[in-house]
Amino acid sequence: LTLARVALDGMGGDYAPSAPVAGALLALSELDAEHRVQLVGRESVLRDQLRSHLAGEFSALAPFTSRIDIVDATDVIDMAEKPVAALRGKPNSSMHVGLKLQLEGKSDAFVSAGNTGAQMAISTVVLRLHHSVARPAIATVFPTSREPIVVVDSGANVDCSPAELVQFARLGVAYAESVFGRTNASVGLLSIGEEAEKGNAVVKETHQLLAASGLNFQGNVEGRDLPKGASDRGPFDVVVCDGFVGNVVLKFYEAVAPMIAGLLKDAGADDKLLGGALRHLDYSAYGGAPLLGVNGISIIAHGKSSARALKNAVKVAARAATARLDEHIGELLGEGQTGEKA
Amino acid sequence: LTLARVALDGMGGDYAPSAPVAGALLALSELDAEHRVQLVGRESVLRDQLRSHLAGEFSALAPFTSRIDIVDATDVIDMAEKPVAALRGKPNSSMHVGLKLQLEGKSDAFVSAGNTGAQMAISTVVLRLHHSVARPAIATVFPTSREPIVVVDSGANVDCSPAELVQFARLGVAYAESVFGRTNASVGLLSIGEEAEKGNAVVKETHQLLAASGLNFQGNVEGRDLPKGASDRGPFDVVVCDGFVGNVVLKFYEAVAPMIAGLLKDAGADDKLLGGALRHLDYSAYGGAPLLGVNGISIIAHGKSSARALKNAVKVAARAATARLDEHIGELLGEGQTGEKA
Repeated sequence: LTLARVALDGMGGDYAPSAPVAGALLALSELDAEHRVQLVGRESVLRDQLRSHLAGEFSALAPFTSRIDIVDATDVIDMAEKPVAALRGKPNSSMHVGLKLQLEGKSDAFVSAGNTGAQMAISTVVLRLHHSVARPAIATVFPTSREPIVVVDSGANVDCSPAELVQFARLGVAYAESVFGRTNASVGLLSIGEEAEKGNAVVKETHQLLAASGLNFQGNVEGRDLPKGASDRGPFDVVVCDGFVGNVVLKFYEAVAPMIAGLLKDAGADDKLLGGALRHLDYSAYGGAPLLGVNGISIIAHGKSSARALKNAVKVAARAATARLDEHIGELLGEGQTGEKA
Repeated sequence: LTLARVALDGMGGDYAPSAPVAGALLALSELDAEHRVQLVGRESVLRDQLRSHLAGEFSALAPFTSRIDIVDATDVIDMAEKPVAALRGKPNSSMHVGLKLQLEGKSDAFVSAGNTGAQMAISTVVLRLHHSVARPAIATVFPTSREPIVVVDSGANVDCSPAELVQFARLGVAYAESVFGRTNASVGLLSIGEEAEKGNAVVKETHQLLAASGLNFQGNVEGRDLPKGASDRGPFDVVVCDGFVGNVVLKFYEAVAPMIAGLLKDAGADDKLLGGALRHLDYSAYGGAPLLGVNGISIIAHGKSSARALKNAVKVAARAATARLDEHIGELLGEGQTGEKA
């Protein structure tokens, strides 16, 4: 796969349709010329938005419209809508239509900044899970003072069994290797002490399973190891935790950097210095988090995603598609032919 | 209680006996003249250390030695020793002797930077628990862009029941009110969404119990709310979580501020500006974390505590004693006379 066709939800997120339409143009201006973006949503709304962007701020990007396809979808899912209601009641939503394109072989990846619960539910139903996967998991990229690390699960599953946590480790390794180019990606288990016997009941049992899993398991890592991407035993690429802990830490991280920047600004720090130094802590640089475990690619972007964040999410999606993330997941799960588009 | 006699473990922590002995002198130089410090440990070691400090860096603090009592304790607990071994095998440890002083009415509080597990075990056995308390909890102070907040539990209990989490809330409220002067302290429940139905199984049930507890419950708070000490519903004083999540977030917080400071330094930020702006994020400013639920006061300081951190821990201990923290806990637990020293 050298070209990727990325379907982008034109109606999802706090700043839709403006941010996704601009994000599509920006992504195409940076991606290789084989890639295309499929903007999915109400056709007239998306065409109007595209016209208005091209008449204004984004006029220089007009040449890239030739690589945008608009795919009509009449229903729009609300940010606060119950996932099951969205799944059952809106078969023509931009999410449903966008994900179905992959099933039909017309698209290679899907990105949305819309209702996360709905995206998880519709992705699972439309794409289905790899046959050995019990529950899909969200993998988030955490910036560190070294290379970024992959934290999985970041919020899809709150109460997890040890076997599920081991599966999250496999999914995270596939992602770190396919999309971030890590070799024999190493795995840390998030706990409250470095020794195997530290942690809660689920974590202690998971430690034993990971040690016997054949994965490159580095043992427990603690909260203090996350900002440096390394424990006393060395660096790690993937951190495994349940979605409750992962989500708390993710949201804390997203909020603590701006808080510290605020303290420094009050103390008279230079805006440009701050912006430059803290740039790579900005989650929008990483664009989106894949829902791992489905047969296909579904990238969850932050509800507050800007055009820049969605640009980066589309680029992550294109990279995941061309790197055959999904095929790699099948291999790591010990599946034979996964039936993926190659 | 207007004077406090604080017993300080002279042998505990990575920098003992130097840091505790210096911390005692520094604390006395800042506390009112009624307060005393009892340095507990090997008498000859402590006397030698005191002499050496007074002959060197701390010579100006010589007048304060008159308010230091040295209490001999022959055994020393190792940082890596198993708590049960320390408890059973070393009845004359500095921890055991220091805590027993409270039981005998000779001391009002105990502080140690030593083996945390041993301190929890020995505190529980020597001081015993309030009769309605099932498990003691560690309360940590988190700096925020507003006032600091109290996070409980920060590591004593990894698998908690909803009823235990409600008890942690009561303990945290007593601490926030007694020691931090909060009125009708408000409680947030750490979760992954603001709605009552968000969270894992234990958290969802805890939400219902807290809503009916009579406490000033503000609902769920998320990771992103911690750095500002407020959710969309307003500020909160106490955050309740199990000790696994609390410990992960605490250690992450302790490590992320230095990591960000490092990025800024690399970008050329001024050391003095950084130090000034980030000063109140330094955990050593808050000194120590009380083990709440025991009959008495036991303050757990970081193993890496400097003299300054131990100074602050002694001050926290003195404040907890004079504010009658333990009596307040008895009241909030609905106990009658707690038999505390008044």
